[in-house]
Amino acid sequence: MKRARFAAGGRLCRGLLDEKSGELVDGGGERFALDQVVFLPPVRPRSVVGLALNFADHAQELDLDKPEEPTLFLKPVSTLIGHLAPIHYPERAQFVHYEAELAVVIGQTARAVSAERALDVVAGYTVANDVTVRDYIKNTFRPPVRAKGWDTFCPLGPYLVDRDDVADPGQLEITTRVNGELRQEGNTRHLVYSVPELIAFITAFMTLERGDVILTGTPKGISPVAVGDVIRCEVEGVGVLENPVRLAPGGERR
Amino acid sequence: MKRARFAAGGRLCRGLLDEKSGELVDGGGERFALDQVVFLPPVRPRSVVGLALNFADHAQELDLDKPEEPTLFLKPVSTLIGHLAPIHYPERAQFVHYEAELAVVIGQTARAVSAERALDVVAGYTVANDVTVRDYIKNTFRPPVRAKGWDTFCPLGPYLVDRDDVADPGQLEITTRVNGELRQEGNTRHLVYSVPELIAFITAFMTLERGDVILTGTPKGISPVAVGDVIRCEVEGVGVLENPVRLAPGGERR
Repeated sequence: MKRARFAAGGRLCRGLLDEKSGELVDGGGERFALDQVVFLPPVRPRSVVGLALNFADHAQELDLDKPEEPTLFLKPVSTLIGHLAPIHYPERAQFVHYEAELAVVIGQTARAVSAERALDVVAGYTVANDVTVRDYIKNTFRPPVRAKGWDTFCPLGPYLVDRDDVADPGQLEITTRVNGELRQEGNTRHLVYSVPELIAFITAFMTLERGDVILTGTPKGISPVAVGDVIRCEVEGVGVLENPVRLAPGGERR
Repeated sequence: MKRARFAAGGRLCRGLLDEKSGELVDGGGERFALDQVVFLPPVRPRSVVGLALNFADHAQELDLDKPEEPTLFLKPVSTLIGHLAPIHYPERAQFVHYEAELAVVIGQTARAVSAERALDVVAGYTVANDVTVRDYIKNTFRPPVRAKGWDTFCPLGPYLVDRDDVADPGQLEITTRVNGELRQEGNTRHLVYSVPELIAFITAFMTLERGDVILTGTPKGISPVAVGDVIRCEVEGVGVLENPVRLAPGGERR
């Protein structure tokens, strides 16, 4: 099943994608064409945990060694937007990068979960774009909040795809297209730390709740985007997340 | 006014401290003795923004220069606990430090707020203990999530004190006592970046919402604690936050 949160007809809805008709069907059976709705992030996390360097080829392109352990950061929840919503380009930024990622959505309260049991606590998967202002990054292992934390810097969606509909989260193609041009390509089989290993590492010290999200890291192929670009991040079998880039309203200071 | 969130009589309550009687009074006028209630954090933030080095004397004791700009990190909201709740000491940690801090609570949606207007968006103040496992810190400017993000590592409270009841957030004594012994002492007049400057810096890139919290940094005098210790963090005119240290249930892996 592909689950969406959206606004339509003057209210907030949760619904399923009817893949035959291409419509969204809410809990009461009402149907909406996709161009009638405003997509929201498919879940409402309390915590969004990111991985700074979790693809060997991406570490290589940044001229860095593989990390000795998962290198986590947190995205503030104020970064979350849905499919098709504009990413706000900070007025003074020089280098804003997309980072297409498989996002893991937690399905139940999870603490001290072993890697063996880790997929049991997963609700499903979605696509994330871990947008980053490269200007502020001095040490890639510890991205500052200001590099990853701008409003609109975490597009998520369009759908939460149920765990059982994804045969193996460790065998998924990831691509990014900017204005139709292929820019980024990878496969989650090259994750340095796998989805189960990440869940085990994180829940060893912090409780993840239903709806919390792990951004599993981005493969090789990051490059700058500009105002007016359209970014399409795809994870095989999970979805295509599209967002245009617009100049931030008002710039850094209003 | 001193505002509390607490559980009592089988329900969640919001109430005010009656300073004459020393009781909590809920919205319906019911009164509770302090030893009848379970204190919760006085607010429910979506984001808890911390400052890594915001006292010159604390930077000095760690042998570091003052930061060129505010060095932010995020605490996951899963770290939050109330007054008197136990801090869980991670089984394998060697150095767990208290960090007493003035916590600023945001009162309204705030984006791109100038330093001049910054106090307008403040609801009030409370006391925080930004508990830290020093073992995991290699670079103090970018504390990893695992150093600051263990469950129970952000005691907050006991009360939200209204902004107008604190004459100047830049003139407050901060002290920590461990088992009654004075260990940490400072004054917010020595903050490297003041409360208004922090609000301006953060809201230049991210929206803060009502209830969000800024931990303004800790002064000189950090030292390790042990299981069985009782930590009392005090901010002048804001409150005394007390929490015992207990061994984490189940250790790192269950």
